[in-house]
Amino acid sequence: MTEKSAQRRPGGRTARNRENVLRATAEVLLHEGYEHLTVARVAAAAQVAETTVYRRWPSKAHLAADALSELARTDNPIPDTGTLEGDLRALLGQILALIERPEVRRVILTVVSLATDDDEVVAAKVAFWESRFVGAAAIVIRAVERGELAPESDPYELIEDLVAPTYFRLLVTGRPLDDRLVDRSVELALSRQGICAAPVPGRPASPSADD
Amino acid sequence: MTEKSAQRRPGGRTARNRENVLRATAEVLLHEGYEHLTVARVAAAAQVAETTVYRRWPSKAHLAADALSELARTDNPIPDTGTLEGDLRALLGQILALIERPEVRRVILTVVSLATDDDEVVAAKVAFWESRFVGAAAIVIRAVERGELAPESDPYELIEDLVAPTYFRLLVTGRPLDDRLVDRSVELALSRQGICAAPVPGRPASPSADD
Repeated sequence: MTEKSAQRRPGGRTARNRENVLRATAEVLLHEGYEHLTVARVAAAAQVAETTVYRRWPSKAHLAADALSELARTDNPIPDTGTLEGDLRALLGQILALIERPEVRRVILTVVSLATDDDEVVAAKVAFWESRFVGAAAIVIRAVERGELAPESDPYELIEDLVAPTYFRLLVTGRPLDDRLVDRSVELALSRQGICAAPVPGRPASPSADD
Repeated sequence: MTEKSAQRRPGGRTARNRENVLRATAEVLLHEGYEHLTVARVAAAAQVAETTVYRRWPSKAHLAADALSELARTDNPIPDTGTLEGDLRALLGQILALIERPEVRRVILTVVSLATDDDEVVAAKVAFWESRFVGAAAIVIRAVERGELAPESDPYELIEDLVAPTYFRLLVTGRPLDDRLVDRSVELALSRQGICAAPVPGRPASPSADD
């Protein structure tokens, strides 16, 4: 087998192996947690040799990052609603739906608590987030094409503005992840770009008139 | 109310005991980590009975929250620079200086990773953050008095806008905590209050004097 070209353009057995390994990794991550993840277990479940796993994923951290990227691509696809506000609202809504699943929440908390002095872990985390932000860049590119955003807009900063309050509540303050958070976060991300979000029907614009 | 304030602001031996217990707790937290914190150890170090500790702090989680609140009050006092922008910049600068200390960073990561299914832990976390936001409310009150903010401004939301990107980078993406982050975060918090403080329908654009 010409392993290198197969790796470059994976089809057939290589693609199936990759899929099986990532599925086995996600199974362990979601149902048992990162601490139970080992390359040996994943290799056995996916019916491949451990060396096959190590050839593609240098560490269990990379394996986990890749499996989570795959899950995110499936369960949190980049929306295309026709407007920037619609895209941001849909994206954050999907993220909140994911976070509501206890097993996803547990994975997030585990990943956060992983030692930041482990270079492999840090590299894997960065790789995971880069892959997510590359996807989100599509939202920005389309908004620029529609004239909703200035051409120099930074996708990373826009997405950071959108999702940071959610992660802050989830990880730090424990405040509720409710509909008002979605409204506020979309408004926040847009206001930073100089755009005012349209008030949501049936819900007071922020600041609330009832406060 | 008098009973409560007497409990909260004890004098003499009670005050000394409290101080010693919190100092001993902070010592363990910062130099060894939450996992090494026990009420027995803290009681011994502070030379008080364990029951004395339990009388005030129902769990080790509450003890840790209170010790961290005390540290925050000392090392991250609420600034009063004369302008809202100055106050926000100073506050975030202090937070970043704290986060740069590896022992503080470790405590934050530990607190974040503590089980969210433990009611004591959740209550302690909420108590810690409430105490911080009560402090930050002073910034908002002064800004309202100077006419920089509308009277209905929510201190929690303002501070969340300010600090969420910092915690998102620290805990999630690992992106750098640099000067540009401070500039962006202050801008973000202000733009949310200024540019897009759209008037609420059925309400005058400028706050009325009888508020």
